[in-house]
Parts: sequence; C-alpha cells; structure tokens
Amino acid sequence: MSEMVKVAVDAMGGDNAPAEIIKGALEAANENSSVKICLVGAEAIIKEELKKYNYKQEQVEVINATEKIETAEPPVMAIRKKKDSSIVKALQLVKSGECDAYVSAGSTGATLVGGQVIVGRLKGIERPPLAPLIPTEKGTALLIDCGANVDARPSHLVQFAKIGSVYMESVMKVKNPRVAIVNIGAEEDKGNALVKETFPLLKNCPDINFVGSIEARDIPAGYADVVVCEAFVGNVILKLYEGVGGTLIKKVKAGMMTSLRSKIGAFLVKPALKETLKTFDLEQYGGAPLLGLKGLVVKTHGSSKAVEIKNSVLQCVTFKEQKINDKIKEKITLEDE
Amino acid sequence: MSEMVKVAVDAMGGDNAPAEIIKGALEAANENSSVKICLVGAEAIIKEELKKYNYKQEQVEVINATEKIETAEPPVMAIRKKKDSSIVKALQLVKSGECDAYVSAGSTGATLVGGQVIVGRLKGIERPPLAPLIPTEKGTALLIDCGANVDARPSHLVQFAKIGSVYMESVMKVKNPRVAIVNIGAEEDKGNALVKETFPLLKNCPDINFVGSIEARDIPAGYADVVVCEAFVGNVILKLYEGVGGTLIKKVKAGMMTSLRSKIGAFLVKPALKETLKTFDLEQYGGAPLLGLKGLVVKTHGSSKAVEIKNSVLQCVTFKEQKINDKIKEKITLEDE
Repeated sequence: MSEMVKVAVDAMGGDNAPAEIIKGALEAANENSSVKICLVGAEAIIKEELKKYNYKQEQVEVINATEKIETAEPPVMAIRKKKDSSIVKALQLVKSGECDAYVSAGSTGATLVGGQVIVGRLKGIERPPLAPLIPTEKGTALLIDCGANVDARPSHLVQFAKIGSVYMESVMKVKNPRVAIVNIGAEEDKGNALVKETFPLLKNCPDINFVGSIEARDIPAGYADVVVCEAFVGNVILKLYEGVGGTLIKKVKAGMMTSLRSKIGAFLVKPALKETLKTFDLEQYGGAPLLGLKGLVVKTHGSSKAVEIKNSVLQCVTFKEQKINDKIKEKITLEDE
Repeated sequence: MSEMVKVAVDAMGGDNAPAEIIKGALEAANENSSVKICLVGAEAIIKEELKKYNYKQEQVEVINATEKIETAEPPVMAIRKKKDSSIVKALQLVKSGECDAYVSAGSTGATLVGGQVIVGRLKGIERPPLAPLIPTEKGTALLIDCGANVDARPSHLVQFAKIGSVYMESVMKVKNPRVAIVNIGAEEDKGNALVKETFPLLKNCPDINFVGSIEARDIPAGYADVVVCEAFVGNVILKLYEGVGGTLIKKVKAGMMTSLRSKIGAFLVKPALKETLKTFDLEQYGGAPLLGLKGLVVKTHGSSKAVEIKNSVLQCVTFKEQKINDKIKEKITLEDE
C-alpha cells in the first residue's frame, strides 16, 4: 500500500455544509484507500452526519472546532480572533504536518490569508497564487493568479509561470505546457506597464515553454495551458467565464422554449447537450489550489456539492504523490542561484 | 426635413471591404433620408461597386484616397506617413466639419490614434474612451473603456462614468443609468489601487447614478448599464465575452450532433435558437464609439458585415440629433467649476 495522504476538510464551510462536504470527503476515501480524511468542525453535528454513510473507521477522523468564520467577515481579523474555527484548526493541521492538505468551500479570504499566515510560504516564493483550472475547447488551462493579492510585480508573474508549469506538467500530465501572458494584443510591444515589463523576463526564462501573449478571446479556445496574469485580471476572467457561460445557457434554454417545434427539439437534444455542457462547468474541475505553500491548500466553490469536494480531495493525492512542492522549490531556486 | 447627418465611411477598412462596407452604408442612406454618406477610398473601385445598388445620388459622395493603412502597421507612424489613406482622409472630413461622424472597420490603432490627433478631444476631456455596447440578459450595457490607453488614473475613470451616463441616457434611452465599477468583490474596501482610489470619487459624484462595484460574473446578468473600467481590463472583458460565447456555442452545436436523437432535435430547435443567440452576438450592436472627441468616431469589428456598418451609421444620426457632445461638455465642465 502506498503512503497515506491526510486531508483536513473544513466540514463547516460552504453553502451546502456540512452534508455535501462530508458526503464528498467520504466518497473520496471510499474511492482511494490511501486517503485519510480529518473532518474539522462541530463534532456532534459531524458525527450525526457520519451515521448516514458506510466508510472505514481508520480513514476518517473528526476534529472538533467550535467556531465558524463567515464569508462576509474581514479575513485577517477572523483568522486572528477565531482560533477555534474550522478554517484555522484545519490549516493548523497542515502547518503541524499532521495533514498534507486542506480543502474548504468556506471563506475565500480566510483561506487565502490563513494559508499564508498559518501554513506559510515555501522558501523563495514571493506570493502564493490561487490557480483554478478553467475549461477550454481542448481540455483545461490553469489560470494563475486569481487570488486576493492584486497589483503584482513582474517577478511575481515569472514565479506564477514556473509554478503553473510544474502543476500542469505533474498533476495534469500536460507535456511541456505552453505558458502565455494575458495581453490586449499579440505583439510584444502591446500591454500595460506590468505586462511590458514581464514579457522579456518570461521570454528569457530557460525552463518554461513561453509562447507569448494571449488575448482573452483565445483563452477558451485553448491556445495556452498556463495562463499567467495579475490577480485582478485573473478574477475578472474567472468570474466572466462563469457569467457569460451562465447567461448564454439560460438564453439557449429560453430560445428552445419559444415554439412547439423547438420544445420538441429541446426534449430530444437535452441528454446530449447536458453531457457536453458538463465539460464547460467550472465546478466539475475540483477546487483551486493556492500554490507555493508548505502544504497544499485548496479552495472550492462556495456552492460546492459532493462531487467537487471529492475531486478536490483526490487532487490532493496526486499533488502529494507527484511531490509537486519539491518540484516547485527546485524550479524557483534554480533561477535564483 | 431634419438637418443632414454627414458620415465619412472608410470604404477600404475591414475584412469585407469594400463590398460589405458600401452595402451597409447605402442601406443606412436608403433607410434614413437625412443621412449623407462620404465613401472614402480608391475612387475607381468604389464607383464600380456603387453600380450594383439603387440609391439617391445626393445622399452619396465619393472621396478619393490612394493609400490604405494595414491592421498590423504601428498606428502612430501610419497616421503620420499615410496622409492619403482612407482613414486619415475620412478623419480629416470630421476635423474640418464637412462630416459629423466617421465609421471604420479598419485598423483599431489608427482609428484611436487618428481620432485623438486629427479630430481632437473636446475641451476638458483627459482621455477619450472606446465604449462598445455589450449584450446582457436585460438588454445592453456600455463597457467603458476598451481603448488603447491602458494604466488609467482615477480622474479618467470618473470622466468615463459621466460620459457613459450621457451616452446610455441619450442614445440608448436608459433612464438614470446605473453606473458600476468593475471590481473583484462587492465590498467598498476590495480592489486594486486604482479601483480603491476611484470608488470614493464616483460615490461623491452628484450627477451620476453610481451603484457601487460590479463583479465580472454580474456583467452579463445586466446589473449595470455603464460598466466602468480601465482599458486593459475592458479589453479582457470584451474579448472574453466573444471567446466564451464562441466556444460555448461550438460546444452546444457539437453536443447536438452526438446521436441520431439529438440530431433530429437540433433540426427542430435550430430556427428558434438562431434568433435567440442573435441577441448575444456583439456584431449586432453596431460599432464602438470613441467618445469625447470633437466629432463622432466609430470603430466597428474588423469582420463587419453590411448590417454592422448600417447600424453604426444610423447610430451616428442619433448621436448628432441628441447633441451628445454638448451634453458631454456640459457634464464634464459642470464638475470642474
């Protein structure tokens, strides 16, 4: 049997907590026997919920936490004050080495701040990026950074490019991943001050496959595997992906209901369409890892259902097995020397 | 009869020039008898093309231009060197007052630079924004700025908010248009340095209906009528709109072709779907105006067909009739005093 991968799961975070969170975590444990789940939260509630499921006792542990950080709370203050919250206690399990990874559908801000403050950055990492996978025509791309730290410097973006390359190569098995920087034109002299300064640095990076600028239009088409950008822009891209997708699907559905003819067509088309559109649903891809920390911290959608939690936990297994952090450290220090 | 509105149309710009450009311009003239078209470009070619159509002679004039600015040319240099290009000559017609407006599907860069250098800014305007209409669930929103001038200052964004309000109110007839600033969270303390500095300025603007921050996810849902942002972010939004839309529609089409059942469904659904998706096609909305100049400059898609040219020319009529520039001047100077 391979080494156990221990994942601290915030049982109280997210719109569907604790039911869907616990369900998804147990599904991951049942699917992979090297997973050990530490469910962090209100012990009594969790234990009550656990009664509904079949699972191996030795794969599941409950860690009591009496407080909960709400989404609207200012994250820095919440992390500092609520020492007995599920988020803080789960992160501390990673910090102490008791767990390898952390998964939460709760407050993004608290996870981002707590990840840095409690778990801590790997040596040499200037700023840990939040990097979700987004669907493209050809599969997926890593959008790096969508985090809370806006107004990045060029050196940050260069690190994002390297970290993202490691992730896509080792976790997603993309060989020699194509790295591009988000820009407003394809030419090298285009862009804002940040992009113009970063472009030559990326071009001179020996250990990444830099393919140049990418216009936002070409991201869904899959022109790059690692899409590098500053967090404000990354956040706009991620949320617009969801927004345009959602609105368009609504329009398609409404369009199909305009006549009897189209209603019959819609009935016939529905199963096939549902399957196809699933590949364009961001929630199918598990959570977004906050990379460059001394352990893996994964933030899933606030609206996560069991499937996203399960996928996120299983992602943690690949992350550990592939020794991603060793590879990131190697790639970052390589350059610094 | 109302006063004539004279529109200089760059007959040589765009992927479908001159055929679709001339066709669209004539359609506008035939639809509205107060339109006069000045077709600027290679006289012989234009005159040959004109033979195909019925139109009133007095509504159409041809202005010869022997040069053409290509899309890939550095715009500043092109504007300076190619004095006899269709873009430069058409812009000069606006500058001299012979024409009220300019429409081109050619080089965006040359139109943006030429608009500022040749036509010139209105007094008090710091930076003329490019402001396309984008489709939303509820209709359209004005995305301001998507231009070439990145790294804006807070005072620019405040002007964009005012100019955009005038446009939506007077041209699009939206009463008391809701103005929002693109941000990465709804709270006032969220954002990058630019947004944080701009937010209180917008909040204290007496003559706009500022509703706060808008997350990218809520733009397609139609939460604001005037979506204010810096040009780099605006460009990403505009192009991602096109990109996600295009990819998703491809996925929907492919999904419908996966089985016999779904193929029959697709046949039935097609006409209704086509009609609905049209409302989400950016090219249906005419070109993007470059606002705050001493005349109206409109840039249409490079791939414009006749319908977009026609709509853009007709947009120029509303712009003049509604005295938009007088209203913009009034709103800008109001604050300065």
